Amino acid sequence: TIYHKTEYRERRNHFAYFACSETVAGFDTQREDFLGPYGSFAAPQVVKAGQAHNSVAHGWQPIGSHQIKVTLLPGESKRILFLLGYQENAVEEKFDPADSQTINKKHVRPILSDYLQFATVDRAFAELNAYWDDLLGRYAVQSPDEHTNRMVNIWNAYQCMITFNMSRSASYYESGIGRGMGFRDSAQDLLGFVHMVPERARERIIDLASTQLSSGGAYHQYQTLTKRGNNDVGSGFNDDPLWLVLCVSAYVKETGDWEILDERVPYENMVGSEMPLYEHLQRSINYTLKRIGPHGLPLIGRADWNDCLNLNCFSDTPGQSFQTTTNKDGITAESVFIGGLFVLAGKEMAGLAARREGSKAQNYLREAERMEKTVLEAGWDGQWFRRAYDDLGQPVGSQECQEGKIFIEPQGMCVMAGIGHADGKAKQALDAVAQYLATEHGIVLLEPAFSHYYLNLGEISSYPPGYKENGSVFCHTNPWIMIAEAKEGRAEKALDYYLRINPSAREAISEVHRCEPYVYAQTIAGKAAPSFGEAKNSWLTGTAAWNYVAITQWILGIRAELNGLCVEPVLPESWSGFQAQRVFRGVRYDISVTRQGKGNSVAMRVEGKAVAGCIVPLPAAGTKSVRVDVVLS
Amino acid sequence: TIYHKTEYRERRNHFAYFACSETVAGFDTQREDFLGPYGSFAAPQVVKAGQAHNSVAHGWQPIGSHQIKVTLLPGESKRILFLLGYQENAVEEKFDPADSQTINKKHVRPILSDYLQFATVDRAFAELNAYWDDLLGRYAVQSPDEHTNRMVNIWNAYQCMITFNMSRSASYYESGIGRGMGFRDSAQDLLGFVHMVPERARERIIDLASTQLSSGGAYHQYQTLTKRGNNDVGSGFNDDPLWLVLCVSAYVKETGDWEILDERVPYENMVGSEMPLYEHLQRSINYTLKRIGPHGLPLIGRADWNDCLNLNCFSDTPGQSFQTTTNKDGITAESVFIGGLFVLAGKEMAGLAARREGSKAQNYLREAERMEKTVLEAGWDGQWFRRAYDDLGQPVGSQECQEGKIFIEPQGMCVMAGIGHADGKAKQALDAVAQYLATEHGIVLLEPAFSHYYLNLGEISSYPPGYKENGSVFCHTNPWIMIAEAKEGRAEKALDYYLRINPSAREAISEVHRCEPYVYAQTIAGKAAPSFGEAKNSWLTGTAAWNYVAITQWILGIRAELNGLCVEPVLPESWSGFQAQRVFRGVRYDISVTRQGKGNSVAMRVEGKAVAGCIVPLPAAGTKSVRVDVVLS
Repeated sequence: TIYHKTEYRERRNHFAYFACSETVAGFDTQREDFLGPYGSFAAPQVVKAGQAHNSVAHGWQPIGSHQIKVTLLPGESKRILFLLGYQENAVEEKFDPADSQTINKKHVRPILSDYLQFATVDRAFAELNAYWDDLLGRYAVQSPDEHTNRMVNIWNAYQCMITFNMSRSASYYESGIGRGMGFRDSAQDLLGFVHMVPERARERIIDLASTQLSSGGAYHQYQTLTKRGNNDVGSGFNDDPLWLVLCVSAYVKETGDWEILDERVPYENMVGSEMPLYEHLQRSINYTLKRIGPHGLPLIGRADWNDCLNLNCFSDTPGQSFQTTTNKDGITAESVFIGGLFVLAGKEMAGLAARREGSKAQNYLREAERMEKTVLEAGWDGQWFRRAYDDLGQPVGSQECQEGKIFIEPQGMCVMAGIGHADGKAKQALDAVAQYLATEHGIVLLEPAFSHYYLNLGEISSYPPGYKENGSVFCHTNPWIMIAEAKEGRAEKALDYYLRINPSAREAISEVHRCEPYVYAQTIAGKAAPSFGEAKNSWLTGTAAWNYVAITQWILGIRAELNGLCVEPVLPESWSGFQAQRVFRGVRYDISVTRQGKGNSVAMRVEGKAVAGCIVPLPAAGTKSVRVDVVLS
Repeated sequence: TIYHKTEYRERRNHFAYFACSETVAGFDTQREDFLGPYGSFAAPQVVKAGQAHNSVAHGWQPIGSHQIKVTLLPGESKRILFLLGYQENAVEEKFDPADSQTINKKHVRPILSDYLQFATVDRAFAELNAYWDDLLGRYAVQSPDEHTNRMVNIWNAYQCMITFNMSRSASYYESGIGRGMGFRDSAQDLLGFVHMVPERARERIIDLASTQLSSGGAYHQYQTLTKRGNNDVGSGFNDDPLWLVLCVSAYVKETGDWEILDERVPYENMVGSEMPLYEHLQRSINYTLKRIGPHGLPLIGRADWNDCLNLNCFSDTPGQSFQTTTNKDGITAESVFIGGLFVLAGKEMAGLAARREGSKAQNYLREAERMEKTVLEAGWDGQWFRRAYDDLGQPVGSQECQEGKIFIEPQGMCVMAGIGHADGKAKQALDAVAQYLATEHGIVLLEPAFSHYYLNLGEISSYPPGYKENGSVFCHTNPWIMIAEAKEGRAEKALDYYLRINPSAREAISEVHRCEPYVYAQTIAGKAAPSFGEAKNSWLTGTAAWNYVAITQWILGIRAELNGLCVEPVLPESWSGFQAQRVFRGVRYDISVTRQGKGNSVAMRVEGKAVAGCIVPLPAAGTKSVRVDVVLS
């Protein structure tokens, strides 16, 4: 067993260990001995020579390597256990003997002898499997499409749990916890894991809301260990508070835990400032209403969802942060996107308010309607929704622009919010998306990509064309279009977009995609980039949650509502239906969807009895399972 | 030509270029193409295949690689130029055409066509050679020892210039400018470059002194770009201000520029706080006198020269900074080392003061004498100088201690300061160094190394035994012992110690030393370490300056004094003498030293005329060169 005890001799009381079930032929713990002089992990000297050096680390860089000699006959296999562990000792029993510098292995020895047995490891893996079976079993589907099944049943849900645990703190591309948890990131991630770990989601909501400012604004990031807002970045990202409304609404719908709204939550973590969570939500709504620009649209602040569209930061200094530099007064630049988000959040708020404020809940709907009207007037460009107005009052994401004529975000958010549904503008906007933004590798964020730097737009124009926010397939936004298409009833388009960025589906083009075929990436290089179709920054992205929402709630159509589980699939004509199992408020729903016509009209039977509409009423207390049969026609 | 223009398209106006005099057979600029999938610099795919991919970088990671096909007959050679350049364009002419995104190459093209010619490059190298010849020619020696010659004439002086330019900001081991310039680091580095670039040394002194606090204390670090003190680390390292006295004295001795003492220099860079530099030095001295502990020794503060001996920081929290954590009141722990440093600085101050304050200059000598007495009483352990007293008033570096019984720093500093010369304690201390600390690979910092963590000593005990401050050959301190031995007239010991860590001499044991054989390293693993003799952290270390001082000023014995150039070699009996050339205050001194007896008594002739003592009087104005002949007997 190799013990790694850096700093254990001084202030740390934890160490790592690395053991093996096989008799070792050698080992290495000094990295340079293992790699060889000027060696690299691509060709370690010890591996090339097939002979360990038995090097003992004593400073400099360590490594842990066991050499095992195994001879296999053709077809023979052999099982070897490697055990990598972490152990903490109490300060008073760090060493054995107590006055030595030798690690006390009292607590680790039983673990080693236990876990180097196949039976123990098999049992531990079985427990781990059961844990994941439980989480992943909260929503399972058997559909005609293997990529949908694979992602929904395993990998997309798994990625949602990873974003819950890690937010944006660690991946192949990002590292360290310095950045903290994003307010809007975490609020959106929650949409993807709330049904798996509702009790943890509740905690996350309270943590998030505790960093909200008494103005209703929010720290853009907070640290999970201290649970304090990150002063380096501060606040002023004007979309942030509205996401809190969406995630609380999603939580209440999933759990029916209305009491969370009475939970007393502080502002800025200040003792004495506690108010009911519901008050936080009201302030979130009012935060937008108090920050309205010349066209009646919400002021954008430092940035809205798109951190790189910086309309109040005219930066000409290399190295200056686009996110924290604000040199405009902020009273002109407006966001159509926040307008759409406000309409969506206002409707969700009205749902929550109905039970608390009764008829006053209508106020939220009225504000949402007013904003909807404003968006349709000032935010409509003729063929699509504009993105914003800049500090000069000029439109961003408009026919009038030379570049960046159309952006994806307002098309997705406005249509999701129901804006333009009545007068056909929603479909028109989605048609523009199909025409100008959709590619075989997903839907790009904007078009045409910015070919040079625009002082009035900020970081978005600093990336090479086709990369990141400058016209890549910024995957987070794609499910908004899928949901919008589903809401408009266009099932073929919704599923088509879903499959274009589905990692499992993209495995067939791995030489282009160049990313793990089971995990969403933040970005796929757009058509303006030489490496069009290449994905980057996998794992830690809001893409996970939103794609999960799009496929499970809006295409398969099974979603939590305040008054029950909704089953309202929007499936392509070619799908004959699907089976699904959903655990909702402790009850298992066995859902069968069968296509009998070409459309997506729902005829529902619950436990064999016809039910009007698409919502399965909440069953009587004690009910263990509910059978739901839906016929589409 | 490969152009690297990251961010040039937005806020930067500089770019790099990489050109070649040969027709290229191919190139690569996309790193992944060059290295191959999962490839490494240890075995780039393109090099293995012998075929460039002609990849064009467009985001992700870049590289610059030219492929050239050359066939050489046996014995044939071919010269190829590679040109790596940096260019800035004015903002208004960044692009050509102006509305494009193409770099304007107007200014770089002439450079390329010029510098891809052999004649231009030869001329440029000749100019560079002349520049270095001038700098290195300020002190040249021809001695019987090739390692002395090689280091003094080229590499040690060169390293001193590197520490001037880079301080501790970049090396194979350290990187980035976050740390800034150390106050005491830079003050000591100056001792090694002041004779080469006196005008830059003057600027450095003013910069340093400008970050001094009005209390006389000093920011421990400052940033070269802003020239402001580094608030993250702050002040309270109680040795810091005294180094300012030493470096100003060295500067005035080298240049005769007494006017620097009248230069008005602010405190903490605050406009309006300017005082003559001389006042800064007075406050430095007073800073120590106002911070005296129970034994009459200087209080240590956060640390003295040894940043890792933290006597007012009892840290039991992993990750806590030993340098910035202070949880003791600081009124007990004292430093014998600062006592010695104060005596040395006090004597130097008296030299400067004599010309300004007349008889009042004696005050500095009197304070030095008082401190000397205190050190001899409270700082003497019986066989050597103690290191310090801890927060409980217990001695550090004493027979009484279990570990760390003897430290190198006070032996070097106290003897350099002349403490114990009269009563033999100096030689006794140096004998203890020889007995307990000296090894074949240099003199270790302390003995025995700390085998476990001591809450009352801090970071020093956090390193594994034999490494870094915990008993490695911390090279910076070794020349103090060389100087001390030379001052005590023990030439054999001084040169012996010099050669033990001389990189050129250690080339013979490169398999142990494992470091560049022309540059001093910060540390050589000590006898308590498994890798005893292995050097680490080369280039950026105060070792460069102090070794240069030890060999050039105290062993070869040629040093600037206020009233002229001193020639007082302390050579081993085996040396027959040496020749040296020294440029001092614009005059070239040709110095010949010849041994006629076994000792180091100096008989000097200047331009053929006998001169009493060891100091060459300053020549008449307009004198270009002076011939000095010294006979040792």
